[in-house]
Amino acid sequence: MASKRVAVIGASGYGGLQTLRLLQGHPALEVTFLGGERSSGKRWSELTPFLPLPGDPVVQTPDPEAIAAAADFAVLSLPNGLAAQLVPPLLERGVRVVDLSADYRYRSLAQWQQVYAAEARQVPRHDADLCAEAVYGLPEWETERIGRARLVAAPGCFPTASLLALLPFLQQGLVETQGIVIDAKTGTSGGGRAAKEHLLLAEASESVAPYAVVGHRHTSEIEQLASQMAGQTIQLQFTPHLMPMVRGLLATVYGRLRDPGLTAADCSTLLCSAYRHCTTVEVLPVGTYPSTKWVRQTNKAFLSVQVDSRTGQLIVMSAIDNLVKGQAGQGVQCLNLMAGLEATTGLPLLPFYP
Amino acid sequence: MASKRVAVIGASGYGGLQTLRLLQGHPALEVTFLGGERSSGKRWSELTPFLPLPGDPVVQTPDPEAIAAAADFAVLSLPNGLAAQLVPPLLERGVRVVDLSADYRYRSLAQWQQVYAAEARQVPRHDADLCAEAVYGLPEWETERIGRARLVAAPGCFPTASLLALLPFLQQGLVETQGIVIDAKTGTSGGGRAAKEHLLLAEASESVAPYAVVGHRHTSEIEQLASQMAGQTIQLQFTPHLMPMVRGLLATVYGRLRDPGLTAADCSTLLCSAYRHCTTVEVLPVGTYPSTKWVRQTNKAFLSVQVDSRTGQLIVMSAIDNLVKGQAGQGVQCLNLMAGLEATTGLPLLPFYP
Amino acid sequence: MASKRVAVIGASGYGGLQTLRLLQGHPALEVTFLGGERSSGKRWSELTPFLPLPGDPVVQTPDPEAIAAAADFAVLSLPNGLAAQLVPPLLERGVRVVDLSADYRYRSLAQWQQVYAAEARQVPRHDADLCAEAVYGLPEWETERIGRARLVAAPGCFPTASLLALLPFLQQGLVETQGIVIDAKTGTSGGGRAAKEHLLLAEASESVAPYAVVGHRHTSEIEQLASQMAGQTIQLQFTPHLMPMVRGLLATVYGRLRDPGLTAADCSTLLCSAYRHCTTVEVLPVGTYPSTKWVRQTNKAFLSVQVDSRTGQLIVMSAIDNLVKGQAGQGVQCLNLMAGLEATTGLPLLPFYP
Amino acid sequence: MASKRVAVIGASGYGGLQTLRLLQGHPALEVTFLGGERSSGKRWSELTPFLPLPGDPVVQTPDPEAIAAAADFAVLSLPNGLAAQLVPPLLERGVRVVDLSADYRYRSLAQWQQVYAAEARQVPRHDADLCAEAVYGLPEWETERIGRARLVAAPGCFPTASLLALLPFLQQGLVETQGIVIDAKTGTSGGGRAAKEHLLLAEASESVAPYAVVGHRHTSEIEQLASQMAGQTIQLQFTPHLMPMVRGLLATVYGRLRDPGLTAADCSTLLCSAYRHCTTVEVLPVGTYPSTKWVRQTNKAFLSVQVDSRTGQLIVMSAIDNLVKGQAGQGVQCLNLMAGLEATTGLPLLPFYP
Repeated sequence: MASKRVAVIGASGYGGLQTLRLLQGHPALEVTFLGGERSSGKRWSELTPFLPLPGDPVVQTPDPEAIAAAADFAVLSLPNGLAAQLVPPLLERGVRVVDLSADYRYRSLAQWQQVYAAEARQVPRHDADLCAEAVYGLPEWETERIGRARLVAAPGCFPTASLLALLPFLQQGLVETQGIVIDAKTGTSGGGRAAKEHLLLAEASESVAPYAVVGHRHTSEIEQLASQMAGQTIQLQFTPHLMPMVRGLLATVYGRLRDPGLTAADCSTLLCSAYRHCTTVEVLPVGTYPSTKWVRQTNKAFLSVQVDSRTGQLIVMSAIDNLVKGQAGQGVQCLNLMAGLEATTGLPLLPFYP
Repeated sequence: MASKRVAVIGASGYGGLQTLRLLQGHPALEVTFLGGERSSGKRWSELTPFLPLPGDPVVQTPDPEAIAAAADFAVLSLPNGLAAQLVPPLLERGVRVVDLSADYRYRSLAQWQQVYAAEARQVPRHDADLCAEAVYGLPEWETERIGRARLVAAPGCFPTASLLALLPFLQQGLVETQGIVIDAKTGTSGGGRAAKEHLLLAEASESVAPYAVVGHRHTSEIEQLASQMAGQTIQLQFTPHLMPMVRGLLATVYGRLRDPGLTAADCSTLLCSAYRHCTTVEVLPVGTYPSTKWVRQTNKAFLSVQVDSRTGQLIVMSAIDNLVKGQAGQGVQCLNLMAGLEATTGLPLLPFYP
Repeated sequence: MASKRVAVIGASGYGGLQTLRLLQGHPALEVTFLGGERSSGKRWSELTPFLPLPGDPVVQTPDPEAIAAAADFAVLSLPNGLAAQLVPPLLERGVRVVDLSADYRYRSLAQWQQVYAAEARQVPRHDADLCAEAVYGLPEWETERIGRARLVAAPGCFPTASLLALLPFLQQGLVETQGIVIDAKTGTSGGGRAAKEHLLLAEASESVAPYAVVGHRHTSEIEQLASQMAGQTIQLQFTPHLMPMVRGLLATVYGRLRDPGLTAADCSTLLCSAYRHCTTVEVLPVGTYPSTKWVRQTNKAFLSVQVDSRTGQLIVMSAIDNLVKGQAGQGVQCLNLMAGLEATTGLPLLPFYP
Repeated sequence: MASKRVAVIGASGYGGLQTLRLLQGHPALEVTFLGGERSSGKRWSELTPFLPLPGDPVVQTPDPEAIAAAADFAVLSLPNGLAAQLVPPLLERGVRVVDLSADYRYRSLAQWQQVYAAEARQVPRHDADLCAEAVYGLPEWETERIGRARLVAAPGCFPTASLLALLPFLQQGLVETQGIVIDAKTGTSGGGRAAKEHLLLAEASESVAPYAVVGHRHTSEIEQLASQMAGQTIQLQFTPHLMPMVRGLLATVYGRLRDPGLTAADCSTLLCSAYRHCTTVEVLPVGTYPSTKWVRQTNKAFLSVQVDSRTGQLIVMSAIDNLVKGQAGQGVQCLNLMAGLEATTGLPLLPFYP
């Protein structure tokens, strides 16, 4: 079978770099277009001496016509608001798209415009139909629809870790829908490659701090999926924290069990069952807790569950690599499904420890 | 006024090192005895070339008689179970003690024996009276009693951060006593200086992981004080996480507000009021969240509070240095009160940032 | 072609873990025996939940008979001195060996006994013939002999980085043989997985320090190869430094140019020429300097060269991953050659940045 | 004695922050003016919630008239080129200045204009007389002249560590003046607080890399002092490396001994003698090597010396905190001398370990 041709747009950011790296070893997908605004016209090796690409391509302006001529698929790794400019012309030209930004994560354009208000003010959008059409790219829960999609909105890193932990319990109606708390911890690469003072090593190292407490944008994204799965509106607490490390994301999810008699072993069985066909999700034995290091540079999530019989609390821990399973790897996983391949084709599932 | 004489026992561990460092610049307390088991007989400069002490003392076996001859006060930085061997003979000889271990943190010896079962099996104890007599060394809440105490049990690092955040709200009856969640994050120095595989840099760096989920020993210590303040039994969720950094501890505390109309500003006012006389606790403006780096190597806690009006959740964030305000600095703060000094005498309150 | 069968001995240390990880994705080598002393009898998943192996094997006592029955090749990742116990019986039984320890790195047993005196006192050795027979496993310089070898001694991490930088210049006689200085920097994983106080995160983080200044064991290993290449005895200065990071090794090599008219461009051309057939060595453009992050978890070395025309100094910088190109990856590279495969078969050459 | 009044200009950068922190606890110097361009008009607590200052001052435009009205001394922590605009009017108004930038480190304006060519193009300077007048602020070697100076140019961080190691040997003529190599390692805070991509935690963590190889600006600064001390022109090799840590700087200095019979003990004795009156320099016993952690947040340098009798190489290791002894602490040390105080008044000399 001939390789499918893939365009990667926004190549020099972290999302683009991961995508390019993952596709280098891929047996059935090939990068045929390298797009970027700022780096347009530059030779790749000048920008990125550490990741030599075959033929040392020149980065091109992401023109829809040129992309469509060169590629069957496009992965967009662009700032929020910009993807929505490029997606409509690409779809019109028959290019199927995986978008790593937040632009198509909400089924309602109005909600996007409310949550991403600053971007919405700068970018007029009229693609409510595409918002409705786009498939949320969480492959463990949307395998079929992703396979058929023209447009996939890859989830944020926090929603990925949180939803993988939470959805099985909501689906089975085992947790109270009120009072859910998600305390999440991420490495600084989640903040992107653009230089910002608070992400300097001198600032962020030897430092742990919460940010965007109450109202972080990923809250609404998590709630959208959680509500859909539970069949009722869910409002929950989501608190992100910045960790002194490059990569990795841990979500510690707290919820009240409806049936206080359920044990950790029961809950672990439920998780195992929910993900029994997913090689990307590993459920750890009760009492073994995941480290973000265990999933570093892999497309895997490690889950573990614990129950406090005194308080009736369920605690689900979920570790991913924020740039792979939380971003680019998940994008490639979606691409695989769209291309009719096995979901994990070409994706790393084992870490180099330590 | 002549300096008070202080013995430091367990000098080469992190608790001992911090205590010695803090007392070097102290205007009214003087180290007159340096005790340690393993390092006994060795000259200090051989053990610790980076912290020269006046006269370069030899570390001595912690013999009660010798300690009593040399010192008015003793700070014990020993493994759990060992302090309880040394405290009775010291008190008998008139030495007043600040114990940094967990041995006297519970008012009931039976509870200690249950929570610290492994230590209890190795160390027979018959000092229930001292457990009852000991004062819990959280100076912001026990100023008077610490001042008069013969024996002070300095709190654990997690309880310190958690209780400073939680007690004002429990005292005023503003949070539901059920469903409280404390999600805590600590640097690896909290695990001590003895070499353990999981605390190696190669293991703990670039890694975030929960541990002792459900049932960590500090849970019961927090619950004891919380229950006492609330006037009713409180059972709560406490989950510690290991962070890839040397020092620093952040507790993110979640609770349901009884009155859903309370705002973050209201709650912040409450905190300010509770700690208005405490230079060791700083309440940040609403919307400013503490970093552990802001308190690094200081005896200060930074608190911030936020409220989600949608869910009625109160979120209190509390940052301390686990080895200073969470251990040795708090010990010196207690010593100051016992010696009739201002609580923060000789204690650093401003960080060297970054 | 059927897969070759490989035994990995010392599986739970960092060298063993990397070897196992690398062989999981290998198209022509298969792990058929998992050996370890301490972990013998334990199921792999209990020891290492983060690296699931097919069939979840039980770790076995490294008995030569059992190894020979199961495997064509053995990779030994054992403490210095222990490999020399296992190698003779393995070779007798027809198992070809890659040894990651220092036991066969010297052509003379007497020199090993002098440099590794402590180990030599504990382990009587009479295998001078094997020391003479063993091939030093630096594949870029010993391709042919490694391919035919029964016993390959994989180089230390410091010698690998240093020699790749230095050998081309010594071979061409371009640097003075006196006054060479190698200032090397390594991550803490180079110290192994056994718990030691100075490798704790609390000690080694936010810390840079030299160690074993003058007389580090790798000095003699580097000198042996350097002298051989130069055709005269070379004595040089090697100073290792411990860095606050998990993985990565940088050697900064200083030497006096014999011909002061040589430019950086000349020297860079020489390096390119020396390694033109090696996909494992990348020579950077003059003025681009390698970061250890660029080679993280790859089997690649990045070299760069600079010349100070004022002083006549040549500066060669060499970055590797100490556990891959500096240890286990190089071991697999040797295995590949011994098995008649392309040197880099199954080895990662591109990093996941950042 | 009344406190001397000090203006701190450039308050929110790392140099300014350290200076302010150090002066908070100072018994005889008081901050009476807080100046900054970008932050002018803002209340200090908004900029820096973690470092409360008495009276919560407003940051002011650094107007010479206003500064002179408020202060006897000024510490300038400004980008290179900007200090030279402010220094002449301050001196005219009788304000004595410690400048932390490079503007007055060279005795010759022409040399500054050559080394700092980019700045020189933007800032026309005509103060060659002040360049000649300024005293190089290395207090261990210029105590007298600093005490009398109107204008002190505090040295760079690399020159401080390097010169403290090297000057005693040059002074005594014990090392060859040719072939000196300084391999230096610094934390990322040395690059300042302005956001730059390569200083992001995601980039700089888990990474060690050389930069500005051959021709780093500090080379000429080191050579100026070294030549002056040796009485002849010295050209040496200086290579800085960026370390994955916040603070700390280690210089490993290599030189050839003129007398090959000298031992490490001899050289250590020489160092001890050179610094016998300096509490800011500690010479470690032979065989004990300094870690940057040992001097973290102190105004101290730790030196250690080793000799390789085989090669005749002298190796001097020198560790400082780049922001304290390498910048702001040294500035305060100079201020102390200028104010007629003991050099280390108010300066921290003991670390909080770990």
